[in-house]
Amino acid sequence: MRIDLNSDLGEGFGPWRMGDDAAILDVVTSANVACGFHAGDPSIMVETAAAALARGVSLGAHPGFADLQGFGRRVIRMGAREIEHAVAYQVGALMACAALAGHRVTHVKAHGALSNLSNAEAEVAAAVAKGVRGVDRALRLVVMPGLVSEAAGLAEGLPVVREVFADRAYADDGQLASRALPGAVIADAEEAAARVVRMLEAGAVETLSGGRIPVAIDTVCVHGDSPGALATARAVRRALEAAGHTVMPFAD
Amino acid sequence: MRIDLNSDLGEGFGPWRMGDDAAILDVVTSANVACGFHAGDPSIMVETAAAALARGVSLGAHPGFADLQGFGRRVIRMGAREIEHAVAYQVGALMACAALAGHRVTHVKAHGALSNLSNAEAEVAAAVAKGVRGVDRALRLVVMPGLVSEAAGLAEGLPVVREVFADRAYADDGQLASRALPGAVIADAEEAAARVVRMLEAGAVETLSGGRIPVAIDTVCVHGDSPGALATARAVRRALEAAGHTVMPFAD
Amino acid sequence: MRIDLNSDLGEGFGPWRMGDDAAILDVVTSANVACGFHAGDPSIMVETAAAALARGVSLGAHPGFADLQGFGRRVIRMGAREIEHAVAYQVGALMACAALAGHRVTHVKAHGALSNLSNAEAEVAAAVAKGVRGVDRALRLVVMPGLVSEAAGLAEGLPVVREVFADRAYADDGQLASRALPGAVIADAEEAAARVVRMLEAGAVETLSGGRIPVAIDTVCVHGDSPGALATARAVRRALEAAGHTVMPFAD
Amino acid sequence: MRIDLNSDLGEGFGPWRMGDDAAILDVVTSANVACGFHAGDPSIMVETAAAALARGVSLGAHPGFADLQGFGRRVIRMGAREIEHAVAYQVGALMACAALAGHRVTHVKAHGALSNLSNAEAEVAAAVAKGVRGVDRALRLVVMPGLVSEAAGLAEGLPVVREVFADRAYADDGQLASRALPGAVIADAEEAAARVVRMLEAGAVETLSGGRIPVAIDTVCVHGDSPGALATARAVRRALEAAGHTVMPFAD
Repeated sequence: MRIDLNSDLGEGFGPWRMGDDAAILDVVTSANVACGFHAGDPSIMVETAAAALARGVSLGAHPGFADLQGFGRRVIRMGAREIEHAVAYQVGALMACAALAGHRVTHVKAHGALSNLSNAEAEVAAAVAKGVRGVDRALRLVVMPGLVSEAAGLAEGLPVVREVFADRAYADDGQLASRALPGAVIADAEEAAARVVRMLEAGAVETLSGGRIPVAIDTVCVHGDSPGALATARAVRRALEAAGHTVMPFAD
Repeated sequence: MRIDLNSDLGEGFGPWRMGDDAAILDVVTSANVACGFHAGDPSIMVETAAAALARGVSLGAHPGFADLQGFGRRVIRMGAREIEHAVAYQVGALMACAALAGHRVTHVKAHGALSNLSNAEAEVAAAVAKGVRGVDRALRLVVMPGLVSEAAGLAEGLPVVREVFADRAYADDGQLASRALPGAVIADAEEAAARVVRMLEAGAVETLSGGRIPVAIDTVCVHGDSPGALATARAVRRALEAAGHTVMPFAD
Repeated sequence: MRIDLNSDLGEGFGPWRMGDDAAILDVVTSANVACGFHAGDPSIMVETAAAALARGVSLGAHPGFADLQGFGRRVIRMGAREIEHAVAYQVGALMACAALAGHRVTHVKAHGALSNLSNAEAEVAAAVAKGVRGVDRALRLVVMPGLVSEAAGLAEGLPVVREVFADRAYADDGQLASRALPGAVIADAEEAAARVVRMLEAGAVETLSGGRIPVAIDTVCVHGDSPGALATARAVRRALEAAGHTVMPFAD
Repeated sequence: MRIDLNSDLGEGFGPWRMGDDAAILDVVTSANVACGFHAGDPSIMVETAAAALARGVSLGAHPGFADLQGFGRRVIRMGAREIEHAVAYQVGALMACAALAGHRVTHVKAHGALSNLSNAEAEVAAAVAKGVRGVDRALRLVVMPGLVSEAAGLAEGLPVVREVFADRAYADDGQLASRALPGAVIADAEEAAARVVRMLEAGAVETLSGGRIPVAIDTVCVHGDSPGALATARAVRRALEAAGHTVMPFAD
């Protein structure tokens, strides 16, 4: 089976960096790049696009709320049209930075609180999808399968890419289980890797309560902003390849 | 003769507005839209693109330094690569907002201190032109004729559009004469209009010292952020049409 | 009876202005000044402090969420400690700008979405009050009477100032009635003025359903960012003086 | 002889950190804290003030240009009054955050490009000094001895604190030698430490050309944002104590 590995990258700003982008780019096949609102400045965006290009990694925009201090993890109660415009703005900004680097943007994935909101509220999900479609209807929208974000992408006619998380357990409603709950975060690299292989083979995410929710899976999200996360990313890739899967960008 | 009239628009931010964009859009044929760094937020950008489209006004990006407080009129001493990236970012952001509104960006003109710097310093001029070309080499670059900004646009292979100012006199070196000098700003609407017609017919800008510098002229910049400026814009258009010129976008 | 009139001022940023601060400063006795997060830059803050001083108007900080685009009217879901720190930061910034102008800050009033949240959520109310008290426990905290914001101010030992709104009706729970409801906004200047006098004499706010909620009233908020609002402000002052009340700063 | 060691701290923003503040706070006696314009958010400022208080380290404001992306290292061509206001704003913001943490601000030192400009241009130096004095004339102003920044501080009646750099050589005009010149940066910890002791004993800074410029020295600046810099800071402190100097805050 063919599967993509994606990670959030370019999450520095000005003098500050986050994570080891170079290392994670050697592991993943798709990069979601911050677009200047919650992280990422124009120069970091160009550099990240160039680094992704050099490794054959697909490029996606990772728009978020305009909140550097909160790193896009705090909900800002914007109107739906404002969200649509802000998403388009960020996607376009990365498209231009990518063009400067010789690369191109082929997907979009909402970041942080904007992502959470677009998984939980249909109006926000629609605003994100409209913002993407208004820029280019060929852009793939990365969504959590089974939630309103997926429905919104399909309703707007966007190609959707269903994502599961390597290191997170799910609630019974298909949302991510709260990090506060025991077992919600899978810290062990090998355990996370084995879980990813199981999810792919079952075609289902595993819930905290021990159940399974059948979903389509196109990509696996791994993180790279801590040594442990990088180890998990590498373990996931190894396990996928060992299980006979082909790890490659969904955008190809 | 065919001539374009352009103006800087979309110069509000959040709750604040500047100028009477609707009135000026009825006069001009090209709009230069702020891209969020010195003014302009995503929603204002989408609205301005929609308003321009509705009136058949061509759309251009008006990138500036990232300085809302200073409105892009204060030089920020950035490196050339940073300028290139920031220009590309802003152009792309507007392209996406324009796409959302059904319009498209066909030109770029530097704003404020970035414009001044790109007229005076070859390295900055090259950075601006590279930032534009890296996004799309079909984008027209609006420049002051005879200065390094024009040379940089040509060196990058961009179509250049030569601009003169309706209400400003020129120094002997082809730069704008300092506003502090008597006669540098032409406040009277009819005088400015007559001056524009003379410049077009002579193919030359008029200097404060009474001389003429021969230049190609493709577009005339008018302002709209004060009642007097709007009157000048209207007077210029009337005078151009009375003199038999065709006022139309350069981008067509 | 002695009563204060307050208004939100200094709500411009960089090149943009909002409202006619000079006109409203001639009417009110206390000014709540934006502190740079939702509006207000250091120069506007110094200028506003100087203008207030020149008219004997008391000065207060008007801290809000860090959101220029949303003008502080969009909730940002910050933690309580972050709110406490952000309030202190803004209060201190205005204290310094006031000192530069020879004036001093004697009260604090939360702005926009931060105000709404501090009236509705005890944790946010406590964070605002702690942020103020941590800077200077002599600072007066302007609150809506009967709500958690008042309780939080009292719990922190701050002198509280109870505020009513000249042009807004109240819900039965003592919060402002939603602007969407008919009758929630009193547009007519004389009607608003008469209502203020009635509220003062009854010692109660008037609800949309026709009821009264007894509250202490120390100050009346008037707005100045539209011609109608300025007319209301003037009518309120005239009516208060005609009814024999002494309009003067609460801070004296 | 009594001498102070100072370092620039609190230079993170939101999710990002810079340097090992805890380690450097164990070495220095005065901390210059970023105030939110080039780095530092309200929560980081409160935390840094609390950490300094816990170690008996004096607290100073480190105002800079409003430029997170450029970390305050890019000159923004502001007017003198704007600089004065921006300095006051930042100083006041830190005073409030310090009060919240139970600490207090006793000095101010300009950061980055603002510092460079205030050492080179008398008008900028005066604006910085006026901004400080307007807030509180008891605040100490940290300056480079012999330059216009020192003169401006004295002219405004501020107590001035003369600073030398542990790891930088000087030009013949008393400015720091450009980092591009060989020998301008002293990378070796012990060499830097020995140099500091020599400068103190000679009462003079050492120039790149081998000369000495006699100056008063009240504090030595050490950096903490790299392992090498931290080692230098520790070596400087050890060397000073070994030479019999008393390392203590100038503010006591």
